[in-house]
Amino acid sequence: MPLDIQATYHVRSDAQSIAERARALAVEQSVEMPVDAIDDPTVTSEIVGRVLDVTDIGNGMFAVRIALAAATVGGDAGQLINMLFGNTSIHDDVILHDVELPHALVAAFGGPRHGLDGLRWRVKAPRRALTCSALKPQGLGAAKLADLALRFAQGGIDYIKDDHGLANQAYSPFVARVEAIAAALRAHGTVTRYVPSLCGDLDAMRQQIAIAAGAGIDIVLVAPMIAGLANFHRLMREHPDMAFLAHPALAGSRMAPPLLFGKLFRMLGADAVVYPNHGGRFGYSPETCRAIARAALADWHGLKPCVPVPAGGMTPDRLSEMLDFYGADIMLLIGGGLLSARERLTEETAAFVDAVKAYRYG
Amino acid sequence: MPLDIQATYHVRSDAQSIAERARALAVEQSVEMPVDAIDDPTVTSEIVGRVLDVTDIGNGMFAVRIALAAATVGGDAGQLINMLFGNTSIHDDVILHDVELPHALVAAFGGPRHGLDGLRWRVKAPRRALTCSALKPQGLGAAKLADLALRFAQGGIDYIKDDHGLANQAYSPFVARVEAIAAALRAHGTVTRYVPSLCGDLDAMRQQIAIAAGAGIDIVLVAPMIAGLANFHRLMREHPDMAFLAHPALAGSRMAPPLLFGKLFRMLGADAVVYPNHGGRFGYSPETCRAIARAALADWHGLKPCVPVPAGGMTPDRLSEMLDFYGADIMLLIGGGLLSARERLTEETAAFVDAVKAYRYG
Repeated sequence: MPLDIQATYHVRSDAQSIAERARALAVEQSVEMPVDAIDDPTVTSEIVGRVLDVTDIGNGMFAVRIALAAATVGGDAGQLINMLFGNTSIHDDVILHDVELPHALVAAFGGPRHGLDGLRWRVKAPRRALTCSALKPQGLGAAKLADLALRFAQGGIDYIKDDHGLANQAYSPFVARVEAIAAALRAHGTVTRYVPSLCGDLDAMRQQIAIAAGAGIDIVLVAPMIAGLANFHRLMREHPDMAFLAHPALAGSRMAPPLLFGKLFRMLGADAVVYPNHGGRFGYSPETCRAIARAALADWHGLKPCVPVPAGGMTPDRLSEMLDFYGADIMLLIGGGLLSARERLTEETAAFVDAVKAYRYG
Repeated sequence: MPLDIQATYHVRSDAQSIAERARALAVEQSVEMPVDAIDDPTVTSEIVGRVLDVTDIGNGMFAVRIALAAATVGGDAGQLINMLFGNTSIHDDVILHDVELPHALVAAFGGPRHGLDGLRWRVKAPRRALTCSALKPQGLGAAKLADLALRFAQGGIDYIKDDHGLANQAYSPFVARVEAIAAALRAHGTVTRYVPSLCGDLDAMRQQIAIAAGAGIDIVLVAPMIAGLANFHRLMREHPDMAFLAHPALAGSRMAPPLLFGKLFRMLGADAVVYPNHGGRFGYSPETCRAIARAALADWHGLKPCVPVPAGGMTPDRLSEMLDFYGADIMLLIGGGLLSARERLTEETAAFVDAVKAYRYG
């Protein structure tokens, strides 16, 4: 059934209840009413979710695969997530594990415009892993942030992202911050890219993109779960020259990270996606992290690869281990681990950048 | 510290680790970097989150209360949720339990414009509980949905909401559906209100509101977690005559429902909020449901009360029990439980409405 969405849920249940539970899930995520009260045969045959199979995966969990009609999505990213997990997100014992989508739907959303090759091209680094750091802490004014950015650039870093807490605050308005940082990098003369963080509603984000583009910036940071998936996708469609780095803020739901970050964010246009690496401040396992990176880079309906950006408490001493683990198709993001160098920030950044360049990629 | 946000998290931890864990949480939700690498004294004193207290609440859980600077929010609802739970949402063992906000921040967001009194006034029901049903299943065309709406209206229901799965699909475009249903209700001549469900990005939702307003509609349904909180709030600010019914789709995160539905959705402008009632298809306890309703209706920074709408598998036979539990300041939403009556839909609706009117409110 190539025209259907196939969603796989992991459901905590006992063996006696799972068949009924699976049917209830298929109804909840489609017509959301008693099926025997539906008297429209087209709805019964084409719209009601169907249980395709149920597999005991051990530890009291079952994988339940359900077919949902792609026609219910109406081409809207918000309605897609609504169909996949809207009401079921409220069930504590269900995880949205994976989704297969019809090619036409994936192609219509379109995926990254720039992707891995585009982000490499921007910083003239065709083969190696990319490097990134972060401007922190929030609370600093534009001038101090611009000074930090300059020192990162002097160390030769590829990308400098805003901490996702940098918004449009009175002590550091978006426009002042972006113009000061862009000017500092321009004066330095560098391929280093500054990635400002967008905030607010769709119109506010559009205005921020216009400000950024006016300052010569060609990549921005968005947290799709805060912006709303439909708004994230709209921004991508409206700004073909802008690349988008997706941030995982508010993404800690019961949607499997490889699906949410590696498939859905990518499909909606993320050229790169930040996620918590194993062994840092968050609890993802190495297997989860590898699955995120593989999904983001996989051949999937002809989409461009999305750059995995493992982060969250990384330090320069983990560089070789991370490159061994992920390979070259990655962006290494080290924020606090470089900022801790303080007056030696430029030198530590340069050492990090040099080590990434010197690593022997397999 | 009236200018600070006070956020209370419930954290699973052992007693030995909780102090360090609490400090890490305060850092994660503010500056997100090693505090000893911050050399700006204003940031250290005013922006870094502070642990106010830690309380053992039993069963391996601790309540951690943290002060966050209100200035970091910059007046933006998206940034508010980012500060409260952006990165920490990814920690499986933390719940955002409750939040106290400075009065100026709550007042700036503004809360419902219409609220309980406004929704009662619209349907000329000044004292009793309000009644609501839902148009389902998705997959029906505009004419069939309009016929259902007419039969609900003939039964005297107050509000008829779209199922939140009704979007802008090819088989039932928003404009065709809204115009057909509005025309059916207009021809019938009734105070019954139709509540269409909005979908898409902010601009799509604005266009849908314009279509709805043009058809004489004065209340719409939005799922704030799908729309993005900032976009939901923007819609409310731009459309003062429109009332907003909030839907909980995608709201199943680790944010406590009384906080998310009763405080945050209300503060951002929800005149009424749908949530899963206990004993239906979802797992909320009676205590959680009572806490949601109390939060939505409570005296809180001068906001208008937001109407609690317990739902999710309710049936007419639970009417007395629900009114005993909640009292009169509520909207009773019964969807599938009425649609199951099929050819007797109008009669069953009338019986439900009559019973709500006949109930002896204390």
